[in-house]
Amino acid sequence: MLAPDQTRPAMRPYLAATQNFASGKNTPRQFLEESLALFEQWEPRIGAFVCTNLSAARAAAERSTERWRAGKPLSPIDGMPVGIKDIIETVDMPTEMGSPLFAGWHAQKDAASVRALRDAGAVIIGKTVTTEFAASHPRGTRNPWNTAHTPGGSSSGSAASVAVGIVSAALGTQVISSTVRPASYCGCVGFKPSVNAINREGSHDYQSQSCTGILGASLEDVWQVAHEIVARVGGDAGTPGLRGPDRLPAAKKPQCLAVLETPGWQSAATEGAKRSLNDCVARLKSAGVDICTRRNNSNVEALELDLVNATELSHQCNGWENRWFYRAMRDRDAGKLSRIFLERSEKYENLTLDQHRADLKERTRIRAVHADLADACDACITLAAPSAAPEGLGSTGNPEFGVPSSLLGVPSLSLPLFEDGGMPLGLQVIGFFDRDADACAISSWLMQAR
Amino acid sequence: MLAPDQTRPAMRPYLAATQNFASGKNTPRQFLEESLALFEQWEPRIGAFVCTNLSAARAAAERSTERWRAGKPLSPIDGMPVGIKDIIETVDMPTEMGSPLFAGWHAQKDAASVRALRDAGAVIIGKTVTTEFAASHPRGTRNPWNTAHTPGGSSSGSAASVAVGIVSAALGTQVISSTVRPASYCGCVGFKPSVNAINREGSHDYQSQSCTGILGASLEDVWQVAHEIVARVGGDAGTPGLRGPDRLPAAKKPQCLAVLETPGWQSAATEGAKRSLNDCVARLKSAGVDICTRRNNSNVEALELDLVNATELSHQCNGWENRWFYRAMRDRDAGKLSRIFLERSEKYENLTLDQHRADLKERTRIRAVHADLADACDACITLAAPSAAPEGLGSTGNPEFGVPSSLLGVPSLSLPLFEDGGMPLGLQVIGFFDRDADACAISSWLMQAR
Repeated sequence: MLAPDQTRPAMRPYLAATQNFASGKNTPRQFLEESLALFEQWEPRIGAFVCTNLSAARAAAERSTERWRAGKPLSPIDGMPVGIKDIIETVDMPTEMGSPLFAGWHAQKDAASVRALRDAGAVIIGKTVTTEFAASHPRGTRNPWNTAHTPGGSSSGSAASVAVGIVSAALGTQVISSTVRPASYCGCVGFKPSVNAINREGSHDYQSQSCTGILGASLEDVWQVAHEIVARVGGDAGTPGLRGPDRLPAAKKPQCLAVLETPGWQSAATEGAKRSLNDCVARLKSAGVDICTRRNNSNVEALELDLVNATELSHQCNGWENRWFYRAMRDRDAGKLSRIFLERSEKYENLTLDQHRADLKERTRIRAVHADLADACDACITLAAPSAAPEGLGSTGNPEFGVPSSLLGVPSLSLPLFEDGGMPLGLQVIGFFDRDADACAISSWLMQAR
Repeated sequence: MLAPDQTRPAMRPYLAATQNFASGKNTPRQFLEESLALFEQWEPRIGAFVCTNLSAARAAAERSTERWRAGKPLSPIDGMPVGIKDIIETVDMPTEMGSPLFAGWHAQKDAASVRALRDAGAVIIGKTVTTEFAASHPRGTRNPWNTAHTPGGSSSGSAASVAVGIVSAALGTQVISSTVRPASYCGCVGFKPSVNAINREGSHDYQSQSCTGILGASLEDVWQVAHEIVARVGGDAGTPGLRGPDRLPAAKKPQCLAVLETPGWQSAATEGAKRSLNDCVARLKSAGVDICTRRNNSNVEALELDLVNATELSHQCNGWENRWFYRAMRDRDAGKLSRIFLERSEKYENLTLDQHRADLKERTRIRAVHADLADACDACITLAAPSAAPEGLGSTGNPEFGVPSSLLGVPSLSLPLFEDGGMPLGLQVIGFFDRDADACAISSWLMQAR
């Protein structure tokens, strides 16, 4: 609950602030000091960070201030305070992966994405809390909108620290729902790009449908962070990486959007959440956007039918890919693993390579069903989560609405446009593979048309 | 030079030895003790290992002995002494990557391939010497056939330790020539599978054309090691992994083989090496195998032409992918990096993502030219190296003949069938993507038809 001395969480977009940097009316150093004041204020209540390196952050902000003053910023995000999910390696801080098995463990190098952020001038404040091995077991971070509620996961600390303005953006990852769900729960913008679009070297999320995601204070900020990383280190090795312009694509009104219910609509969505989406759809129709659904479009219907088993298929793909690692961690010290980790480890213990190959084929088939939709609509929309963040810190909440874009390997965004019972809730935009810029252009229009 | 007390290097195939394990006439523990005697004898002269864990190896061999006695081996390679290239993580030993920057560094976990080997019962003796970051700068390993000569690289210690029988197989990696070249120089079998065919999680060779390779004492051994790994941990996440039968595919006589010269034929191959290949081709013709070359087949000619720039294209692809890492290592301590590392780092410093995307497209185009050859022949053959191992430890030798299969992402094998000036030299078999089993079946026939 918000205590009387607490203010509402408020994000701090960075790109908008940089316009005063050249004149010296504001500086990256001042921007950082506000970050650190917010850190002092919020961190004891929300527990978003595993560790910080504030002296390095201050020194980086000083250098950035000099560059802006000289008219030579390294990039538009030069000086941006950022957080790094603690599943991603950093040369100056441990990478503990949310597990006591890696307490104090040092990679002795930056991940590709982290190195790119430094080269773009970003100011890295610290490592943000991840669930255990970026899976399901939460590690204590609280939702700043109501500290009795979960911030979501697995990018728990990234979402919470963005929501209160400590950082303007933070790196997350998503293999099931780990970027869009915490973004939705904490009321920030979440961007999960096309799979492989951001280089994951040095990020310990190796599953084939996992992806580095960005949580940020604005669409401009998340696009820019993703763009600056990819310009410097590309996508996963051998892939073309995120495609798109140097700045957030211009807002573009869609001709047609497909509304996806997904299995979560029946099983988990609250009345408030459904009303939010339904009202949004009504406004879109009034604005002249065509809407197709499972009821008037056979391609949408085909996809909806294929998504019925998407959660289990996703878990099985990940289950095979994690199986040996889970076994290895059990061997090291099962007593240091969560119950849910041990249960999942057992559940997928007997998967075979043949089964996995069949699962990959099935996933490829469903991806083609989704790709066919591009003839009918510009993007899909749905909820980013079935409700606002639920009460309790023992679970990171229902992940179902994150599954489709993860399974499909396509871009998705959570836009902080809804609320449910006084807490934030995201509208999710799901784009087409390798067309992340189009998804962002439509998202930009939706943010303006709110 | 071989001193009078030294014996010739002799490999120790493992699968052939296991037939006496059930009866107890031989045991994995006895097999290991012979390994360790060879280790005592050879290691001071060849420097193949960075570190060992012999007590763990003995304990593992004991357990394996029990399993064979009980008729319940975990796999056909249960008890096989193996070495792990020191670019690949191990939970019980440091992973130093051939660089003083990672001296004593611990991953605190096994790589996927290492965990799979343990689960298959293999006995891990130690970490084998790699060149600096699996690139070009050698780290002192000597060729057991003549200790004044290089063993090749980057999988230097893996090749040398297999050649003298300390291990029956060892893990290597190959992004340019790092498996087939040292196999050729040391006279062992080298198997570089289709790209992505063996799970690289925890192996620090992230480039898109890099691949885990196996160096072994026999074709049977290398196939089995690859197969057992993939059965347990698959290929790189999201790929089907190495395909093929549970045991080495039966020898198969090819109808037609394409002889590739590659640019190395003109620029680097010795007269002795050329004679070896030419004699082999003559024998194949006599045995009724059709031979096509650039002179009688336009598809072969097209590929030969595209291979002219293959080395530079490969280096550029790797150059972009390594660029940020090289820069990060320079920032840590340039004084701890080799001259060749620093030169390469500078050379590719200014590559852009657009240039890299163009390089990937060009690589894809050349791969299609190679794939078209499948209509004309069953496999390609060429030299595995332009000569036997050259004198000197300052360089790992000419890598050119390894480039084609690395650039093409297709399986290749070095078969110890030739010699050049009294030192071993490999015949290279280059197969088609995802048809590793066919390349091995043809290799098996070539080994028998020698």
